[in-house]
Amino acid sequence: MTRPLVLTLGEPAGVGPEIVAAAWRARSADMLPFAVIGDAALLEAQGIAVADVFTPGEAAQHFERALPVIHRALPAPVTVGLPDPVNAPSVADGIEEAVSFALSGEASGLVTAPIAKAPMYASGFRFPGHTEFIAELTADAPYAGTRGPVMMLTARDLRACLVTIHVALDQVPELVTAERVARTARVVHESLKRDFAIARPRLAMAALNPHAGEGGALGLQEIETLIPVAEQLRGEGIDITDPRPADTLFHDDARATYDAAICMYHDQALIPVKTLDFWGGVNVSLGLPVIRTSPDHGTGFDIAGKGIARPDSLIAAVRLASEMAAARAAR
Amino acid sequence: MTRPLVLTLGEPAGVGPEIVAAAWRARSADMLPFAVIGDAALLEAQGIAVADVFTPGEAAQHFERALPVIHRALPAPVTVGLPDPVNAPSVADGIEEAVSFALSGEASGLVTAPIAKAPMYASGFRFPGHTEFIAELTADAPYAGTRGPVMMLTARDLRACLVTIHVALDQVPELVTAERVARTARVVHESLKRDFAIARPRLAMAALNPHAGEGGALGLQEIETLIPVAEQLRGEGIDITDPRPADTLFHDDARATYDAAICMYHDQALIPVKTLDFWGGVNVSLGLPVIRTSPDHGTGFDIAGKGIARPDSLIAAVRLASEMAAARAAR
Repeated sequence: MTRPLVLTLGEPAGVGPEIVAAAWRARSADMLPFAVIGDAALLEAQGIAVADVFTPGEAAQHFERALPVIHRALPAPVTVGLPDPVNAPSVADGIEEAVSFALSGEASGLVTAPIAKAPMYASGFRFPGHTEFIAELTADAPYAGTRGPVMMLTARDLRACLVTIHVALDQVPELVTAERVARTARVVHESLKRDFAIARPRLAMAALNPHAGEGGALGLQEIETLIPVAEQLRGEGIDITDPRPADTLFHDDARATYDAAICMYHDQALIPVKTLDFWGGVNVSLGLPVIRTSPDHGTGFDIAGKGIARPDSLIAAVRLASEMAAARAAR
Repeated sequence: MTRPLVLTLGEPAGVGPEIVAAAWRARSADMLPFAVIGDAALLEAQGIAVADVFTPGEAAQHFERALPVIHRALPAPVTVGLPDPVNAPSVADGIEEAVSFALSGEASGLVTAPIAKAPMYASGFRFPGHTEFIAELTADAPYAGTRGPVMMLTARDLRACLVTIHVALDQVPELVTAERVARTARVVHESLKRDFAIARPRLAMAALNPHAGEGGALGLQEIETLIPVAEQLRGEGIDITDPRPADTLFHDDARATYDAAICMYHDQALIPVKTLDFWGGVNVSLGLPVIRTSPDHGTGFDIAGKGIARPDSLIAAVRLASEMAAARAAR
């Protein structure tokens, strides 16, 4: 049987406690049981039953009647909406512990609730975000495949994978190199087979320029970089298209023609993802030794504690991690 | 009563004749009658009744039983799918004549079927496309407002307006100047009032950079250019937001908060438009003395004559020009 998942509570002053509680309330047959690492008091305050456990492996026996919690008390009291840097090291510790459970096999994957960067930076955290931190924590673990991390965003039937992520738009063209595009495509191709049980993945490459450069009239990157790298990848046995005009890639009929889109920059991927499903998108880190998904929204300090935060994205993230864990386990 | 519209047939070897015939077959109460400038034989070949007329003003009396055509014989026979530069001057003449009818008031607006650039360039046409040609043809006509052209693309309830259009992505950041953004916003604001009967238009500005630049960490254009120009525009009485992260602007709830989005580059506008409605999008030229709409697709040489071209976009273009003409007439 597939092992449970491990969740992190994320920033305790944000929406984490309420959406984690809501995800447990929404438990269903297509989710693996999970245990949460965090302060049990914050979860009990959501009006649900909690069960103290020591490892994710104990989650299954409690999950139906209570939310299994690996309790880690916070050093400072939590004021909803106001993050306290004193608690930030505990947030980082929770992620580190979750990764350890996933690496040891006691959890079959991890799902991370949102963190706030400012208080974590104030307490000495030195990574741009979750993804890079988890990549560092797993850097020495064995991994039979092309290393990521590659960020994938999902919405409905769309899987959008990014060549560049959090950079200014004017930095994008120079960062879209053959090497980055090729590595991204290889990670996605391997992950679709291993984690998504797609035997023959079909990748669609989004062009950098409008009209895919229109034969060079609207930019040369397609001719100089993207078409050659697509040919090279096909030579490696990866089914990937030549660069296609990005505005033709995301309607219903187009999405049916591929399993994942390789997008060149943040908004090229995030605009269709969030247009198609603003509340239920999931962020997946591909090409790591551990399975990791997360909601694609932030800590929601402005709405935290008001009972209006939507758990859709976290629930979708738990469901997707469950699917991925089952696919890996079946290999 | 609002005058009829005038349509151009566009490239005669493309899908123009069949989608124009289909638009006439789909005539309904929310469309103005229209006359088409073009070769009547190509339209009769679509299996519909045509009525020879001399001006768009005669369209209404025939429209219910036959498609009114202002017949202009082509110099060379048409082979479907194979454009002939010999016919290209007639294509340009048709556009020029349609603009004249709109300027004189005999037509209340024009709707242009797609043209092919290569044969037109081969015959001496020197404009990047329809929009610039029509702007030139109307340059000396009086116009009480900020001059465009500004390109607007519509899909369902989305109106996306472009600051830059057909340029390589690496050219976009330097072209997004305060002057261009301000002029685009002014043209859109005025047009929403005049052509769309929106008394108090609400504009949403899309950011250039991901996360709207995240306070400068992901690009400075929001701080240096876009936020100041938004303030300046609000000082002029234009209701426009500060730059918002583009991936948060296009889902159902977000679209309900504004009447038009001011987008910085082609794919930022076209990805949501074509994701929401791939077949029914309409291209509108704002800020011209004449009303002009067109389908947002090309000549379709690969599918022309096969009976599979979808007329949705042309029909939506006729419907939208009808609405705009009614709004201008009601002022």
